[in-house]
Amino acid sequence: MSNYKQRVQYLWQRPKPVVVVGAGLSGMTAASYLTQAGVPVKLFEALDRVGGRTYTEQDKLGPVDHGAGYIGSTQTAVEALLEELNVKTHKVPGPDLLYTLSWGGKVYYMENVLQELLHDRLEWQESAAITQAIGDIYQKGEIIRSESGDPWNSKNSEILEWDKMTVQNWIDSMFPRIGNKFDNARTIFQFICRIPLGVEAHETSFLYFLWYFRNGSGLVQLLFPAQDKIVVGGTQQLSEKMNAQLPKRSQAQLNTPVLSINNDDSSKVVITPADGYPIEAERCILAMTPHTRDYIAFRPLLSPMYHKLPQRTPMGTTIKIHLFYNEKFWRVGKKLNGNATIFDGDSISQTYDCTAPGETPCLQAFYVGEVGRRMAMMDPAAREKDAKATIGKIFGNPEKANANIGYSEFIWENHPWIGGAPTGTCAPGTLTCYGNAVRTPTGRIHFASTETAQDWTGYMDGAIRAGHRAASEVLKELGKPEPKPLPPVPNVINDDLKMLNDMVNATNEKVNDSARETKNNQVRVCSYSPGLRITTINSPGSNPTIRISSSFQRPSDMEQAQQFLTQRFGNLSVGLEKFFSANKRKDKGLIAGLNKLQESIAAIGLQ
Amino acid sequence: MSNYKQRVQYLWQRPKPVVVVGAGLSGMTAASYLTQAGVPVKLFEALDRVGGRTYTEQDKLGPVDHGAGYIGSTQTAVEALLEELNVKTHKVPGPDLLYTLSWGGKVYYMENVLQELLHDRLEWQESAAITQAIGDIYQKGEIIRSESGDPWNSKNSEILEWDKMTVQNWIDSMFPRIGNKFDNARTIFQFICRIPLGVEAHETSFLYFLWYFRNGSGLVQLLFPAQDKIVVGGTQQLSEKMNAQLPKRSQAQLNTPVLSINNDDSSKVVITPADGYPIEAERCILAMTPHTRDYIAFRPLLSPMYHKLPQRTPMGTTIKIHLFYNEKFWRVGKKLNGNATIFDGDSISQTYDCTAPGETPCLQAFYVGEVGRRMAMMDPAAREKDAKATIGKIFGNPEKANANIGYSEFIWENHPWIGGAPTGTCAPGTLTCYGNAVRTPTGRIHFASTETAQDWTGYMDGAIRAGHRAASEVLKELGKPEPKPLPPVPNVINDDLKMLNDMVNATNEKVNDSARETKNNQVRVCSYSPGLRITTINSPGSNPTIRISSSFQRPSDMEQAQQFLTQRFGNLSVGLEKFFSANKRKDKGLIAGLNKLQESIAAIGLQ
Ligand SMILES: Cc1cc2nc3c(=O)[nH]c(=O)nc-3n(C[C@H](O)[C@H](O)[C@H](O)COP(=O)(O)OP(=O)(O)OC[C@H]3O[C@@H](n4cnc5c(N)ncnc54)[C@H](O)[C@@H]3O)c2cc1C
Ligand SMILES: Cc1cc2nc3c(=O)[nH]c(=O)nc-3n(C[C@H](O)[C@H](O)[C@H](O)COP(=O)(O)OP(=O)(O)OC[C@H]3O[C@@H](n4cnc5c(N)ncnc54)[C@H](O)[C@@H]3O)c2cc1C
Repeated sequence: MSNYKQRVQYLWQRPKPVVVVGAGLSGMTAASYLTQAGVPVKLFEALDRVGGRTYTEQDKLGPVDHGAGYIGSTQTAVEALLEELNVKTHKVPGPDLLYTLSWGGKVYYMENVLQELLHDRLEWQESAAITQAIGDIYQKGEIIRSESGDPWNSKNSEILEWDKMTVQNWIDSMFPRIGNKFDNARTIFQFICRIPLGVEAHETSFLYFLWYFRNGSGLVQLLFPAQDKIVVGGTQQLSEKMNAQLPKRSQAQLNTPVLSINNDDSSKVVITPADGYPIEAERCILAMTPHTRDYIAFRPLLSPMYHKLPQRTPMGTTIKIHLFYNEKFWRVGKKLNGNATIFDGDSISQTYDCTAPGETPCLQAFYVGEVGRRMAMMDPAAREKDAKATIGKIFGNPEKANANIGYSEFIWENHPWIGGAPTGTCAPGTLTCYGNAVRTPTGRIHFASTETAQDWTGYMDGAIRAGHRAASEVLKELGKPEPKPLPPVPNVINDDLKMLNDMVNATNEKVNDSARETKNNQVRVCSYSPGLRITTINSPGSNPTIRISSSFQRPSDMEQAQQFLTQRFGNLSVGLEKFFSANKRKDKGLIAGLNKLQESIAAIGLQ
Repeated sequence: MSNYKQRVQYLWQRPKPVVVVGAGLSGMTAASYLTQAGVPVKLFEALDRVGGRTYTEQDKLGPVDHGAGYIGSTQTAVEALLEELNVKTHKVPGPDLLYTLSWGGKVYYMENVLQELLHDRLEWQESAAITQAIGDIYQKGEIIRSESGDPWNSKNSEILEWDKMTVQNWIDSMFPRIGNKFDNARTIFQFICRIPLGVEAHETSFLYFLWYFRNGSGLVQLLFPAQDKIVVGGTQQLSEKMNAQLPKRSQAQLNTPVLSINNDDSSKVVITPADGYPIEAERCILAMTPHTRDYIAFRPLLSPMYHKLPQRTPMGTTIKIHLFYNEKFWRVGKKLNGNATIFDGDSISQTYDCTAPGETPCLQAFYVGEVGRRMAMMDPAAREKDAKATIGKIFGNPEKANANIGYSEFIWENHPWIGGAPTGTCAPGTLTCYGNAVRTPTGRIHFASTETAQDWTGYMDGAIRAGHRAASEVLKELGKPEPKPLPPVPNVINDDLKMLNDMVNATNEKVNDSARETKNNQVRVCSYSPGLRITTINSPGSNPTIRISSSFQRPSDMEQAQQFLTQRFGNLSVGLEKFFSANKRKDKGLIAGLNKLQESIAAIGLQ
């Protein structure tokens, strides 16, 4: 055969590529696995760089991560990738030094925020209710997990109901607005929603919130250890290194958004990028945040839910700012680690010391949710000034806080092709109705991006897992062996629950101890049924007294308490019967039972 | 001067046009007014037709309005346009014949749905609670109106709070889930949200709902008279006629989406449509539903809120289907007008007889909200079959219902450039945070589309008003006289409130009458304070009895009732005092007071 004929034949037989749209972590991961499996890949990226929501600016004072910055425990996929690419991490300063908590206009320095908050800053009733509420989130998360993990496939009426609630509705049900009794707890859970998602509790589906937290190894992991380490040299290098490892022809074609996808021929899919040359592909993977999927024109039109999902996954609002200093002034004197949590106020909500080894001291702070939106409308100087004022206050050193030698920020809110941070969110009704469009392939179109991840949704780890999963789907379709699975996410849910439980017990001990010391009384917490607490105080030489308090959240708690009390105080059973039946009719008003219960029993001696 | 030079000079001096993006009713209206004022206009339309959400298909059996079909009272802008363009309307068959109501598995035929529903189908307590809830919507609508109308400008904490609630939250507060006591009321208000908006109560901001209903002249107008008439020959002709009246060079350039807008030169704005030729303009008007604004690439980027609003205004789901028949079989025997309301079930929610004079009998039906989404995934034959089954059942003639001679439908859900029906909606948090981006011009960019209207938002009337307003803004900027104002929307709020009140009184009368007739008792409703009702029954020869019922929704109702009762029954004041103070602590549990109150007073004679 002539050379020419051979070449023509080769060209005709040459396998069509798989097109990956988006060179963020997820698209890069997919492109890598496909390439490793010998599949030709074409990778298009709208921006002038790879990395998407990982974006490391080389500031003259050091590298700055404007997008994703932190990783932590149970994020084994990103750990594995870091190791593979030989990228180092650095632990953010932690419990060797003191954490900062700004709260109700006061500032506290402490060793463990969660623990000390629950022990020392709150009334024990409120602490108990908060712990119970955290337990509720864990419990419901497990229900979602046990039902295949994808709530949109569930027929469980409870799960469907959670998607009809906002996170705020759940907060209201757990912590009713009775005077200001639960104001602290309300603030805390609004904060817990706002911080990782960048949206307010009243904007977010409770089901989405539960799903997101469960996918991120549970509330404790997601809020704390997930921010344990930074990536030395910045997170964008993960995508850059993966890109460099691709064959030249598969490396990301920058500044080239995909504009349309034609999926009407069952033997191929045709992708048209902005350079104008349609490209025939075996399959394609869309690896961008869902709301931007609809920037692409699909022919024929996709099934309706694929067009509606993008209308209903708004990005959150997270503004990350960086302040460079000559010294870590927060360490001087007060020995602070630079990690602050600011519960109230209209300013930054968190700070971290994100200084990499040998780099200029750098403090990083977040504006999130509603405050973030307001701040996003201002100019950089206003943000810098505002942040420094808060930092000066919480670290007790306005002068030093003001003496920064550099400032760096980036606004994702109107960033083209991304449009917010850190991730796409869901208002009520979206997940159960349109969730199926999140990652179910349609025709020859597959979906990646962190929003499609089954673990660590919304995080770099999730982006990698989603890219791996989408590549696996495609390889399976092509009859190729699938890549070896990623390290699974270790299940630490039970450890966390145990820790929470220990904390509750420690709180009880502490109440006990402090009472014994200060008043020379003998205090014993003699019972703890959910929402019910009985404390006996035996001071030598005086009658024993009993303190009984209730903060029932659910009818079942009340039933349990009733059983317990009837067993313990059989002689009171008639009076108790009355109290509980009166309470039962009040449904949500259960909390109000406290006083009555105290009245009924407190006067009676108890050994 | 030579001809050539003259021509060059003319070209340089020629005023730049105003570009209008989108040739729906709103863009067409803006283009018309600008043209009338002598301003050159360039109008781009992405689709292959003008009209946008008004789309009249010329079916072989007659014209079919797949988009907007109905107009009604207080829609004076669309009325004026119809008159100007000499387009006729036709009244949909109404109260001369019977309406159909499908409810709790039963079907009723009646003269006035609202009235008979409240009178005959519901317990009077539930009726009273519903009327009260309607009153609440009116009252809150007026609060929004009185604050400049645009809730995003309001600092009123109540208004801000309403944007943190879903419509479902409001329903829950008005009609708590106490057994099935308020199930009917709950269903009704969920329906009231779903029907005009195409989204579920749990998905919609209560503030948005209030604003939308108030802009549409209040709940009664929006739900009933707004669907009074059809446009003979279809609604799309409004846009077609306006387009034909424009000078050739200003007529809509079809199949030409605008892809990018460059607004970085303070002396002009540069618009690049898909034909690839950038055009310099004085100003531009974006006249499309907000979520599609972001399909356009803006340089420089707009202020963040302009990019976030499009992420947060998902379109509702409304599927309109048409069934053609040889005869109006619903009239035969039962004398139905073809207008049905179907409260329950998984099928169509409303039907209308939309037959224009001299045309083939045509029944039109809606699938909306969650049901609509499910039905949108099926194929047309499944929808046709399902709709006919329901129509057969509610009109009591399955055979005739099945004998349709034509079927026509259109799915807006995945329609490019529109993506749903009838309008863009808002989940909690959107309107107060991003509302300012709805219509506030930015640089040389102005905004039209029905979503930006201050009256009849979401309707054709609103689209026209928005186009007029945007044209006026631009003309003012150009130093040209503004067009004469559109006819204002007549304020009928008080008439409606009076009607509702009359209905309440009529209900009372009716209770009265029926009791008198059936039991030969003398019944007198002797008091009506919100949520409280006292009925005296004097049967000759036996002791008078008193029926007292309460269904307090708000603490203020209870206070009023307390005052009234203390005045009326001074001798009972001690007992009442106790009852009310016990009740006060229950907050949401107020409803439960009914039994107690009855117990306390019912045994005592009363003249
Ligand atoms: C401020 C901020 C802080 C964060 N903090 C953390 C953190 O501490 N830890 C953590 O784990 N995660 C964090 N995240 C989240 C993390 O960045 C993301 O989960 C992850 O980077 C998402 O990767 P992705 O590939 O799924 O999407 P992306 O990174 O968004 O990549 C999508 C790419 O697709 C491109 N694209 C879109 N449309 C087209 C088109 N039509 N044609 C071609 N290309 C297109 C986009 O330009 C983009 O580059 C943070 C994110 C932000 C923004
Ligand atoms: C099924 C249905 C039933 C309805 N029923 C009624 C009713 O009975 N009564 C009533 O009053 N109203 C009704 N409505 C609402 C009514 O149709 C709308 O309020 C009105 O038509 C909106 O007009 P508009 O000009 O604001 O927007 P549209 O009609 O949506 O016009 C926007 C136009 O912009 C174009 N466009 C978008 N992006 C671009 C771009 N980048 N470049 C160029 N062009 C672009 C679109 O293609 C579209 O043509 C209904 C709507 C639907 C869908």
